Amino acid sequence: MKALWLEDRELSVRDIEVPSAGGEALVRVRLSGICGTDLELRRGYYPYTGVPGHEFVGEVAEAPEPSWIGRRVVGEINDACGACATCRRGHPTHCERRTVLGIVGHDGAHAEYVRIPTANLHRVPDGVTDEAAVFTEPLAAALEVLEQVHIRPGDRVLLVGAGRLGQLVGRVLALTGAHLRAVARYERQAELLALAGIEQIAGDEAGERCWDVVVEATGSPSGLDLARRTLRPRGTLVLKSTYHGEVTLDLAPFVVDEITIVGSRCGPFAPALELLATGRIDPVPLIEARYPLASALEAFEAAVRPGAMKVLLEP
Amino acid sequence: MKALWLEDRELSVRDIEVPSAGGEALVRVRLSGICGTDLELRRGYYPYTGVPGHEFVGEVAEAPEPSWIGRRVVGEINDACGACATCRRGHPTHCERRTVLGIVGHDGAHAEYVRIPTANLHRVPDGVTDEAAVFTEPLAAALEVLEQVHIRPGDRVLLVGAGRLGQLVGRVLALTGAHLRAVARYERQAELLALAGIEQIAGDEAGERCWDVVVEATGSPSGLDLARRTLRPRGTLVLKSTYHGEVTLDLAPFVVDEITIVGSRCGPFAPALELLATGRIDPVPLIEARYPLASALEAFEAAVRPGAMKVLLEP
Repeated sequence: MKALWLEDRELSVRDIEVPSAGGEALVRVRLSGICGTDLELRRGYYPYTGVPGHEFVGEVAEAPEPSWIGRRVVGEINDACGACATCRRGHPTHCERRTVLGIVGHDGAHAEYVRIPTANLHRVPDGVTDEAAVFTEPLAAALEVLEQVHIRPGDRVLLVGAGRLGQLVGRVLALTGAHLRAVARYERQAELLALAGIEQIAGDEAGERCWDVVVEATGSPSGLDLARRTLRPRGTLVLKSTYHGEVTLDLAPFVVDEITIVGSRCGPFAPALELLATGRIDPVPLIEARYPLASALEAFEAAVRPGAMKVLLEP
Repeated sequence: MKALWLEDRELSVRDIEVPSAGGEALVRVRLSGICGTDLELRRGYYPYTGVPGHEFVGEVAEAPEPSWIGRRVVGEINDACGACATCRRGHPTHCERRTVLGIVGHDGAHAEYVRIPTANLHRVPDGVTDEAAVFTEPLAAALEVLEQVHIRPGDRVLLVGAGRLGQLVGRVLALTGAHLRAVARYERQAELLALAGIEQIAGDEAGERCWDVVVEATGSPSGLDLARRTLRPRGTLVLKSTYHGEVTLDLAPFVVDEITIVGSRCGPFAPALELLATGRIDPVPLIEARYPLASALEAFEAAVRPGAMKVLLEP
């Protein structure tokens, strides 16, 4: 089968063997999405060799339970052991022995087929298009903010960053009815926020120490700096982006102001699918381009451009 | 009156005028305690000029309400405006216009008299000795951890640091019934933990990624590093110490492991006094030495020695 391959920070499109399903499901990929983490992998953020890609929608080709065959599905990316202390505590996405689809020890979805345990599959409701369903994983990650932080209707919430993930986080934060403003960097980001009815504010007009919750979704030191300056004492700072390398922080103000910092990663698929099915969140306008898998390298170049939105691959 | 004076990072004992009470209370100080923050002030951590000292027990000499006169009291250190958004939100200890006793814009308690609003006073119950009452402020700060973080009886809690504040934090954490271990650096710290029935563990035996809550009370980069390594994914890291200067952190693991970091500072006086009154916490063994105010410089030298416990001043 055709697959994108990452090795020594180099991407190539190759012909590799279709994975054998073993006791798992084999899914024929219909669409996969390029995520910031894919770009980071290529920069050597994790030492990963194999097929990247963890955002996908596909159709089950093989599975131990026949009822799955032919179903349109999306899949959770953490393959947990189910037995370790972390799993038993109810945090399988943090399983110490986990593999992570297209990120840690498990070939991913930028390929014609992907192998995945049936326990990780979710059926896509009929009314959800492939173009929307392919956003399930990042939308779930955006929803994780609401799993972790209680955002009240009266809260003032600032979103710093309106990139691929930031756009989804903004749409999720808007569900809370809180007083939400977003800081965007690029014109296109601003347009897409406006399309979702999310009001914006310039970073230098966001004021100082006056937001109850600030969600940092840029992954840049300047974004983190803005987030810190705008957050009120006793406020909550959500880190919704991974940071490349070390960041130098003056921790004293965090202690004096009794700030809570919450790191946020993967989230729940079921409510993400429900938000897509009800149309309460429509991610489709975030699609910037769509490439055949054979042109994946070109697709990555498009995805890496500053301000780029979601780029999809079609096997 | 005799008072300790800080100016340009230099301490001296001076004769200054007794402050006029104005509409506030004038308290004759019976004992004051030297805190890590006092030592930081001298190192230039905050640009403060005036009388330092914010831990004290005294007797009201003057007050607008006669019922206060002669009462033995301790005092909250943040003088809040009561009118700003932060105060109205119920966080007076974070008031943006606040002064802080002996730290920001308000002469402190290493003196014969200290001026303080009556709203900040708490009566010391009769059964609480001066030697115990002088710990009310740091004990309240230790209690703030329980105000901020829900520690469950089944939690594994690691305390990193057993200095002046760490000892009190350990005693407070022990109240929860959680599985508590403390990492001490000095023999004397270990003895004082043992006296309070707090079990210890060597930092290099604390394991990796296995503690639900880690309280960092050293204020050192090495303590922070140990705290981070020992905390489990989705765990809570409490920063109970101010950090001197900038700290370089790799934030990515905090995001991947969805860690919550909680900065923690001043806490509630009333429960602190109650714990002292009931004897559930006895801080008196933490007193290392007691000096007359006239020998305050010598007292500071004693307090700055590595592993030093509480040093008191007596006007």
